[in-house]
Parts: sequence; structure tokens; C-alpha cells
Amino acid sequence: MKCTVLTVGTEILFGSIVNTNAVYLSRQLQTLGIDVMYHMTVGDNPVRLKEMMAHAYLDCDMIITTGGLGPTQDDLTKEMIAEYFGERVVEWPEQTEILKSHFKGRPMTDNNRKQAWFPEHCTVLKNPNGTAPGFWMEKDGKIVISMPGPPSEMQPMFENEVRPRLLALQNSVLFYKDVRTCGIGESQLETELLDLIDGQTDPTLATYAGTFQCSLRVASKRPTLQEAQQAVEDTMVQVRSCIGQYIYSEEGEELPAVVFHLLQEKGLRLSSCESCTGGMFAAAITDIAGSSEVFDRSLVTYCNKAKMEELGVRAETLDTCTAVSRETACEMAEGLYRVTGSDLCISVTGYAGPGGGTEEDPVGTFYVGLWYQGKVEAFRFSTRRPSRDRVRKNAVLQMFRLLYEKIK
Amino acid sequence: MKCTVLTVGTEILFGSIVNTNAVYLSRQLQTLGIDVMYHMTVGDNPVRLKEMMAHAYLDCDMIITTGGLGPTQDDLTKEMIAEYFGERVVEWPEQTEILKSHFKGRPMTDNNRKQAWFPEHCTVLKNPNGTAPGFWMEKDGKIVISMPGPPSEMQPMFENEVRPRLLALQNSVLFYKDVRTCGIGESQLETELLDLIDGQTDPTLATYAGTFQCSLRVASKRPTLQEAQQAVEDTMVQVRSCIGQYIYSEEGEELPAVVFHLLQEKGLRLSSCESCTGGMFAAAITDIAGSSEVFDRSLVTYCNKAKMEELGVRAETLDTCTAVSRETACEMAEGLYRVTGSDLCISVTGYAGPGGGTEEDPVGTFYVGLWYQGKVEAFRFSTRRPSRDRVRKNAVLQMFRLLYEKIK
Repeated sequence: MKCTVLTVGTEILFGSIVNTNAVYLSRQLQTLGIDVMYHMTVGDNPVRLKEMMAHAYLDCDMIITTGGLGPTQDDLTKEMIAEYFGERVVEWPEQTEILKSHFKGRPMTDNNRKQAWFPEHCTVLKNPNGTAPGFWMEKDGKIVISMPGPPSEMQPMFENEVRPRLLALQNSVLFYKDVRTCGIGESQLETELLDLIDGQTDPTLATYAGTFQCSLRVASKRPTLQEAQQAVEDTMVQVRSCIGQYIYSEEGEELPAVVFHLLQEKGLRLSSCESCTGGMFAAAITDIAGSSEVFDRSLVTYCNKAKMEELGVRAETLDTCTAVSRETACEMAEGLYRVTGSDLCISVTGYAGPGGGTEEDPVGTFYVGLWYQGKVEAFRFSTRRPSRDRVRKNAVLQMFRLLYEKIK
Repeated sequence: MKCTVLTVGTEILFGSIVNTNAVYLSRQLQTLGIDVMYHMTVGDNPVRLKEMMAHAYLDCDMIITTGGLGPTQDDLTKEMIAEYFGERVVEWPEQTEILKSHFKGRPMTDNNRKQAWFPEHCTVLKNPNGTAPGFWMEKDGKIVISMPGPPSEMQPMFENEVRPRLLALQNSVLFYKDVRTCGIGESQLETELLDLIDGQTDPTLATYAGTFQCSLRVASKRPTLQEAQQAVEDTMVQVRSCIGQYIYSEEGEELPAVVFHLLQEKGLRLSSCESCTGGMFAAAITDIAGSSEVFDRSLVTYCNKAKMEELGVRAETLDTCTAVSRETACEMAEGLYRVTGSDLCISVTGYAGPGGGTEEDPVGTFYVGLWYQGKVEAFRFSTRRPSRDRVRKNAVLQMFRLLYEKIK
């Protein structure tokens, strides 16, 4: 099956918003085995919208639109699709009732009423997160699926209303694993899995590159859930034997969340002290609701004075070894333990750039110190193409990776 | 002038990358007064690419393409554009020389050579940031501008090679102000400026909504730079009289950078202590290179024990007033001053959610304390639609805003 993603909205053409709907839908459709041939974006212009539809159907069986379903005069997607298919748009009384219930006591202006009008022959797609429902229409062997623009309304609608119908269309059930890795680049990941990627049509394997992290989606579409699960598991056995050491989650969990759950499980408390990351490590772990259960504090000792005052790093160490050194990282972690008594005390110090760095330790180098079970160790890392942002992100990631390795 | 942005790349259709090129080009073209009619994305498929071009030229005078200019077999944009216009693609010997110089000592594989081949009649657009130059071609009253896909190559090429040519085409010079505001929503901003936005065609005013922040671009395109500057300045007088109190930069500077420069200018040192933001404030200021000049440290006292140990917050205060209160915020800021002696000591404590909160202080409420010139004050804030992420971002922003107000 071939599909076009047609997003409607002048704000996209102005560059005011990023077209995340196209990204979301493309990823979802790919896992369903549906090929996306085009992304198209038009403004709220009736003629151009119809022309785009005609162009898309030259190659595709299906068009998914987002946007242009709201109450204002600009919102014309529904009307234009109906016109393209020669359908009448009529009031659906049960939708009017649902719409009224959205407004409860509040007054509903007349222009809102058009959100309860739909093509005569279609399936209305529920929208519990907004006032504009979507719809699904099939005619002359062509499918059109129309959803509202806001991602908070579109994504649940796709998940609950569209995906099951797309699977039913294909008489199949989808099952997938969202495998997260760290410490391996996308091209190396692809190389390691080349035989698996090349050889198979189902399960499919797709890799996505992030910053210093890659994910892999292993998806199978089979007549029953059990068969799909078995097929994914069979492939996962091979995936694990190729890249097992890089995998930290098979359920799409981020590394900080994985570490958080491990700490929680083992009843361990964590503190951090940060120089070059300047609070980013703490920000990442406290991004998780409930993190106070495992996270005690972070001392962001950005200047040397703070490193001495807060952590008792010795002036001599800073003088002889510099602030960016194995020795300083160790003294920071040890000092943090003295202050907090946390089970795990992690430190980081490095050259984020653009200034600083030495011949042996150029910009991009950082040291991570870790106090655990009465022992302190430090590890040296470097960063490829070291922009300030990349160095800091890499340092945070390596801190979580080290914690993961230590306590898993 | 009407334009289509045509991005080429299977990785966009897969949803592997976000189409930031379309956003960037749309914004740039808007400021130049060029209307963007369509965004289109196709894979590396020759037939579809040519069909898309034909469709785009139905409405547009100009197509800007990105992607598909590289050395591999997949990269076919140049060849297809030439074919569409009935042009031959030939080797440009001076481009071969430039290409060779890119590789210096390293071996250059044969497939790289095609990056020095171009349509016979075109202008080659220099690419100092990569091996694939772009090109500009005009034929039969149609313009095509073709650039490489990586934003790090495309954006400087647009800035240095394309923008001046687009301006020359229009016999005009562009000047703009990138006005940053805080404390006013996009719809209120538009309302305040309605007369200005409605009444004028040049300068143009465009608003962009961010999270809790809005920016405004005031741009003028005139025959001379002086005239454009004057026109923008005349409009800015009116803009300032409408929304002056919300403006913190007219040069596109972010709020943390504005605060950093103010601190630098006045020779003031800053420390922070953070509860609900968990290090995000420190991460934002240390994102600026050289921030150690003004920033001392941040104590991320996530649990109550840390608030007492690090900052001397009294157990009694935490008991009677709770950790999220004006009193705790004040004691945190005072304690921070005792520890650091910094000129400005800022604290934050709040309910980021999803759990926590009280009837008077629901999730989304936070208090910011500020010690400055021997005096401590605390301010209460709330957050609309308080997701954890929004509350934390809002808190960081309000901390910077408070500092800005205090020291500007």
C-alpha cells in the first residue's frame, strides 16, 4: 500500500511551526509496512488542496491529511475532500450531540457547528481530546483519512482509531520492539545487522540515529498477535547476539529512566556533582516524576572555588593536575560522598569548549568519577566533532551509561 | 514571487529526520517577501521528482530544492532538474579543481567526481562546508535553486550565495530586527500589534510562538539599506510603544544570554539553588561559553534533607510552610548567600507534578526567591496547562526574567 501524507496549514508554509505530524505519521506507517511516497503541505486554499489530492492519487492508494478540520472559515479540508469525491457534506446529528457535550455550560458559537458535518458516506473518527473529529472515507478504491492538526489530538486518534483499521485492512496484527542502544553509531549498527536487515521483509528492522544514541525498531505484521510476537522474538535473539552489549532497553525506555528504575529496584540513592555539564545531568534525572525517591542532590560546582568549598577538592590537585583530570574527578566524587552519604556519587569535569583544553586533553575531553561501595574510579572520554552542546550531551549520556553498567 | 520548497530524501519520508530545511527556508523566504505555496518531499526517485517539479511550476515561479546532490548513485536531483529543462550536464573543470582541493592528500573515489558536473547554463553556488556545491538556473521564466541537504551546508549557502541573489532579483535590500519578548502570549501580542500588522505591507511584522515566549520579526525590503533601516526603526518606535515592557532583546538574543551580558557588564556574580527545576537553570546559563565569568555554582537541593544541609533551611519552615512556599524560597536564597557570597542568589521551589500540590498551590505553582543587595524577596508564579516539562521550563524562564528586571 502506498500513501501520501498531506498536511494542511499556512503556519507550516510560514515556517512558524515544524511539521512534526509528517514525521510521526511516516514512522507509524513505516512500521505498518505502508510506503510513504510523498509529504505535501498546502495552505488553507481549496483549489490547491484538490490539485494536490489528484497528484497524490496518481501514485498512491491512500492519503492521510492533517489540519483544516476546525471551526473557522479557513478550515476547508473536509469540504474539499468531499468535493473531490463528489460527496455531499451533511450534518451528523449524533456528532452535534457529542459536540454540544464538549461545551457543557459554555456557549457554543455557530461556527463550531460545522465540526459535526461530515461526508454522507464515511466513518467518523472520535476525538476525545478536541472538538474536531476526523473521518475515514473509501471510494473508487481510494482511501482518505482526515485528522485534526494539533499533535495532542492527532496522535491518540491515529493510535486508537486509525491504526486498528489499517491493520484490519491488511488482515494482520502488528507487534514491535523499540530497542535502544548506546555506544554504537548508526552506520556501525547497520553494518552489524546488515544480514538481518537485507535478508528479511518481516520482521522489518529500521534504525534511527539520535545524538550519540541509536534506536532500532523490530516490527512484525502477522495474522495473529502470537505469531507476530514469536517472529519479533526470533529476530531479537539474532539482534541480541550481534549488538547485545549496546542494548539498554527493548521497550523504548530512555537511558535516564532505565537507570532510575534500576536505582529504585535496588533501593540505591544517587547524588551528582557537575562541572562542564552545569546541571544537565540533574535536569535529566529530575525530568522523571518521582525521581526524589532515588535522587538526593547535585552540586553544580562550576568554578574552582566552588569545587573546593563544596566538595573539598584540594587546591594542590587543581594546580598540579588541573580541574579537568582523573584526580579532580575522583576528589569530586569522594567529596560528594562525604557531604551526602549517597550510595552512588558521580562527578564530571571536562572541556566543553570552545575555549580551554590542552594538547593531551583537547576540547571534548571529560572525566567522570564514580564513588560506589567504598571505591572511587574515574574514566576518561572524548567527543567527536566537539561543539559545546555535543560535549555536554555526550557527558550526560556517558554518566548514565556508567551508572547503568555499574548497577545493572 | 511564488516559491515551492522541494526537499529530496527517503530519510524524510521514513520519518528518520525532521524536515528542518523546509522550516528554515520558509522563514527566510517570508522575510524576503517571497510566498511559499507548497512544501513537497519526494524520495530519491527520478520520475516522481520531475513530476513534482511540473506540478510546482503550475503555480510558482521558483523552486528551491535541498538534498540529492551528493556523490552516490541515489543522488539524482541535479540530473533530473537538467533533464526537466532539457539541459546537458557537463564537467566544470574549475569545480573539479576545487573538489580535489577538498580531499587534499586523501584519496578521492571516482563517484565523487560527479559533484563537479553541472548543467551547462547555470551559476554554481559555493559550498565551503562540504563537497557538493549547489546551483542556480533560470530558464523560460522559471528559476530553480538547488542546494545540498545537510543544514550545516545548506544554511550558509542560502545566507551567502542565495539571499543576495534573491534580493538583487528584487532590486532591494533587506533589513530586519528579531524582537524577543517574554510575559506576553502570541495572541495577545498580535492583538496589541493588530493595527501595525494589518496596515502595513513593508515593513512586514511576523510573530512566532515559543514556549512561554514570543518573537517578532520586523523586516523591510527597500532599494537601499539606509531606507530599509529607517523603515524598520520607524515601525519599531510604534512596536516599543505598544509592547515595550515585554521586549528583552531586539537583536534575537535569548534571555539567558541577555542576563549573562548584563551580569558581565555590571561585574556581578550569580549563584542559584534549585528544587523543581533540578539543574535546568544552571544548565541554561552554563550553555553560554564563558559563563564561569559570572556564574559561581548551583546547588540542586532536590530533597528536603539537602535543602537543610546545603542551605540551612530550617526544619520548622519546611514543616509549617512546606517546601513549596514563599518562606522556603527566601530561606534557600539567604542560605545560598551565606554559602557563596555571590552578588545575586536566586532560588526556586515548586510543584512540577504530576503528583503533589495543595489547594492553594496546585501543580504548576512555584516560588522564586532572590537575594540582592542585602535584601531577600520571593515571588509566586503559576503555570497554565502544567505538564512537568512546561512547569520546569516556565520556572527557568521566570528566574531569568526576574534577574533581568532586577539588574537591567
